[in-house]
Amino acid sequence: MTKTNAGNFFEDFRLGQEIRHATPRTVTAGDVALYTALYGSRFAFNSSAEFARSLGLPQAPLDDFAAFHVVFGKTVPDVSLNAVANLGYAGGRFGVPVYAGDTLSTVSTVIGLKENSNRKTGVVYVRSVGSNQRGEMVVDYVRWVMVKKRDESATIAEEKVPELPGSVAAADLVVPDNLACAGYDDVLAGSPHRWDDYAVGERIDHVDGMTIEEAEHMMATRLWQNTAKVHFNQHTEGQGRFGRRLIYGGHIISLARGLSFNGLGNAFKVAAINGGRHVNPTFAGDTIYAWSEVLEKVELPGRSDVGALRLRLVALKNQAASGFPFKKEDGKEYDPSVVLDFDYTVLMPRR
Amino acid sequence: MTKTNAGNFFEDFRLGQEIRHATPRTVTAGDVALYTALYGSRFAFNSSAEFARSLGLPQAPLDDFAAFHVVFGKTVPDVSLNAVANLGYAGGRFGVPVYAGDTLSTVSTVIGLKENSNRKTGVVYVRSVGSNQRGEMVVDYVRWVMVKKRDESATIAEEKVPELPGSVAAADLVVPDNLACAGYDDVLAGSPHRWDDYAVGERIDHVDGMTIEEAEHMMATRLWQNTAKVHFNQHTEGQGRFGRRLIYGGHIISLARGLSFNGLGNAFKVAAINGGRHVNPTFAGDTIYAWSEVLEKVELPGRSDVGALRLRLVALKNQAASGFPFKKEDGKEYDPSVVLDFDYTVLMPRR
Amino acid sequence: MTKTNAGNFFEDFRLGQEIRHATPRTVTAGDVALYTALYGSRFAFNSSAEFARSLGLPQAPLDDFAAFHVVFGKTVPDVSLNAVANLGYAGGRFGVPVYAGDTLSTVSTVIGLKENSNRKTGVVYVRSVGSNQRGEMVVDYVRWVMVKKRDESATIAEEKVPELPGSVAAADLVVPDNLACAGYDDVLAGSPHRWDDYAVGERIDHVDGMTIEEAEHMMATRLWQNTAKVHFNQHTEGQGRFGRRLIYGGHIISLARGLSFNGLGNAFKVAAINGGRHVNPTFAGDTIYAWSEVLEKVELPGRSDVGALRLRLVALKNQAASGFPFKKEDGKEYDPSVVLDFDYTVLMPRR
Repeated sequence: MTKTNAGNFFEDFRLGQEIRHATPRTVTAGDVALYTALYGSRFAFNSSAEFARSLGLPQAPLDDFAAFHVVFGKTVPDVSLNAVANLGYAGGRFGVPVYAGDTLSTVSTVIGLKENSNRKTGVVYVRSVGSNQRGEMVVDYVRWVMVKKRDESATIAEEKVPELPGSVAAADLVVPDNLACAGYDDVLAGSPHRWDDYAVGERIDHVDGMTIEEAEHMMATRLWQNTAKVHFNQHTEGQGRFGRRLIYGGHIISLARGLSFNGLGNAFKVAAINGGRHVNPTFAGDTIYAWSEVLEKVELPGRSDVGALRLRLVALKNQAASGFPFKKEDGKEYDPSVVLDFDYTVLMPRR
Repeated sequence: MTKTNAGNFFEDFRLGQEIRHATPRTVTAGDVALYTALYGSRFAFNSSAEFARSLGLPQAPLDDFAAFHVVFGKTVPDVSLNAVANLGYAGGRFGVPVYAGDTLSTVSTVIGLKENSNRKTGVVYVRSVGSNQRGEMVVDYVRWVMVKKRDESATIAEEKVPELPGSVAAADLVVPDNLACAGYDDVLAGSPHRWDDYAVGERIDHVDGMTIEEAEHMMATRLWQNTAKVHFNQHTEGQGRFGRRLIYGGHIISLARGLSFNGLGNAFKVAAINGGRHVNPTFAGDTIYAWSEVLEKVELPGRSDVGALRLRLVALKNQAASGFPFKKEDGKEYDPSVVLDFDYTVLMPRR
Repeated sequence: MTKTNAGNFFEDFRLGQEIRHATPRTVTAGDVALYTALYGSRFAFNSSAEFARSLGLPQAPLDDFAAFHVVFGKTVPDVSLNAVANLGYAGGRFGVPVYAGDTLSTVSTVIGLKENSNRKTGVVYVRSVGSNQRGEMVVDYVRWVMVKKRDESATIAEEKVPELPGSVAAADLVVPDNLACAGYDDVLAGSPHRWDDYAVGERIDHVDGMTIEEAEHMMATRLWQNTAKVHFNQHTEGQGRFGRRLIYGGHIISLARGLSFNGLGNAFKVAAINGGRHVNPTFAGDTIYAWSEVLEKVELPGRSDVGALRLRLVALKNQAASGFPFKKEDGKEYDPSVVLDFDYTVLMPRR
């Protein structure tokens, strides 16, 4: 009867189900400008067409997380409109670069379903693939969310907890066609530190902090056409669990990535999201800090000009990163200041 | 002596007067991105160049209300700088689609003047026509505003209350050249409901709510180069009638149209503004909800692939739309939660 | 050891040092839209490609101050990350117009160094030249900032206080190639007042006021990739001198320039920054007003269609400009409402 989309509930999903998401999106120079205005990104690879061309690309690609957010946003009305929590990401690979003028769309496949013992909710695992207008993969990742059931008594035909990759293998990382770092200009890039200079275990305090305003996170979240209600409606959220609008987790990823420029200025391209969790909620007024740890140095097959770093990116709220807050002494629970624990892989020029 | 524009007062207008407005505006992909960021619009027709091409258009057109706001903004310095109230819209038709790169300008004609009995104000009726760089009509509408007199004793040569059309006739609705809905993809569009599925009298609760921030409505209003002082200056408005900056009424129209996607996802093109009133003021912090009622189903001459729906779009503040609040029992006064009563016509694909 | 940029301290600079700044930036239609959304600029020269073409330009150039902010932003991580105060500007010339698609980069030269007597800080004078991808000068200006010393006992090899030009000479003002004002349309431009109509000593109250929000100034400052910490971090600034985030001075310049349209609507192009000072800090919630004084009328060599006006632009906070507040009776100290004292030169069509 009603023509409004109530979203899918846990029992509406089935294993192997493929969902073509609505609202294809042509990305433009307008998105690039807004991304810069929202996150202050300074990677020359995304900021300068001339710099991108000096590395063999036809023009400056869209920031990888901007592409991710567009692809992610498409999935919300079908996957997470009735989500209680966005539990995690894994196995994410970035494919061809996205350029202004490209049109992105997303298709998801349900790869796991697991009802919770309370029978009120269940965990839905989806693999989502974002593609451009030529059908080339732009980003391909798994996320899992806890979704409400419409009816507690409903049963699920088949349940399965999928095996998730620990990290994306070096051979699966995509290096953009024609990328060549021979002429990489450290001065224009803003960092003298190359792949060779980083050591496994090294931790970097990104120093700076960025305070979030309501108008900013809402503009960002709408820009990605992400429709999750909790980000936009103070009238209802004011009476909810937190009394506040919740900030889209991806906003924190982009803020932390922006802050990470200070120390990782040559990490010009994101190649993989190995895993990630939003550990605590964030709200307008929170100030975000970030620190990184080098988890792995990855040589890329056949490449001596560029390597990969697997990094842990930790975002904090209202707490400077100088002490590298992470987990409590038990090694399990997170420090209350931690809002994001993100394991991802970047490309960086070698000497 | 002074070089600043004090705006026109009621006695400065004359019947038949033509006003060429200043500040032609080239619209771009930047405006499109900001429109999405401000209103979260999800109509695939505007979001995706590929989708628009699948319907026969050369690229994705600008959202119709973005074009309206640009055209409207031009009129403010000449028509409503000394307005007490924006009373209504009527007889609005959308013409050729607007694409990034088009330059819009506006010419208005004074079609009505009626002094109020208190002799302090009068109502000015203008027909404003927005055109692109080829002189093609983009939007053509009537609005009327109550404007202050400079001098109470001033008299007006000729007064006239124009006859306003009740609604735009089917034959006057413009269907974009080459538009063909045969290949319309409901899944990508995000709604399974077509023209055939809507019934006159049907009401749709658009469910979602959106809270407005000062930075958002001011950025929007400046983007449209609308210079009405009440939107921007807390220093003076803080001492004014409301103690707050007033939100541009068009901001509410765009928010409500954005919310209406949930239930009217295939209403891809606005064809007419039959009438509309801003019933109550809105302020930052207000949460906007919306509901629609199908007023009329209109067959378009010679078309079986696309039809028109005449809709009432009602926007509310701080009140969910589930009960469809509209008018009080007397049928005259509006419910205090109603902020916009808007009668417009959309195009929608047929089965 | 650390890979983060701590910025330069006073003793890190040396006379004659050339600094190639990082983060070249391709400007786009997205920046233009954001500039309009942030400042409400209405100069038809920047707003309309058609209008710009009617004056002989290939398309609408970026607002001059948008170009300035991009060029300025590049210098922050190297020049003013450890600045205590941004003391002034001088000798600024605008060169070739900047168009969407141009890539801007900045090189600075240290032209002066003067330690303060307390030995804790010193003044650094830099001349910064912004260029496009063809190496053409876009803006070339001097600024001086007070920068902290890392080590009080550090000494400087050579000190020098440079001689600063009082104003940019007429012969040094750049008129864009092919600019011709014969067909200049006052109505579309929005002002009937041409160069001939302004008199030296004339003062103009720009009437309107604009209240600033946190989200706006932060988005602007990030858009220019300006990394000065004081603008973004409420967590630390809340405990600082003002208890608030400071607003980037350039945000005030652009707001005041935007307000100045009302009275100077035909001042379509900024040609020079003769000098300028940020006299008082501004914070979110402040309402900015502005007034101008004509300091000089400058004939341009060989041109009868366009002339230059040297103007003082004064921005105020929370104080209407009607009384032209400027300096206290002693003629030295500024009125506490004054936040910007800016001496610049504009081009304007002649009769």
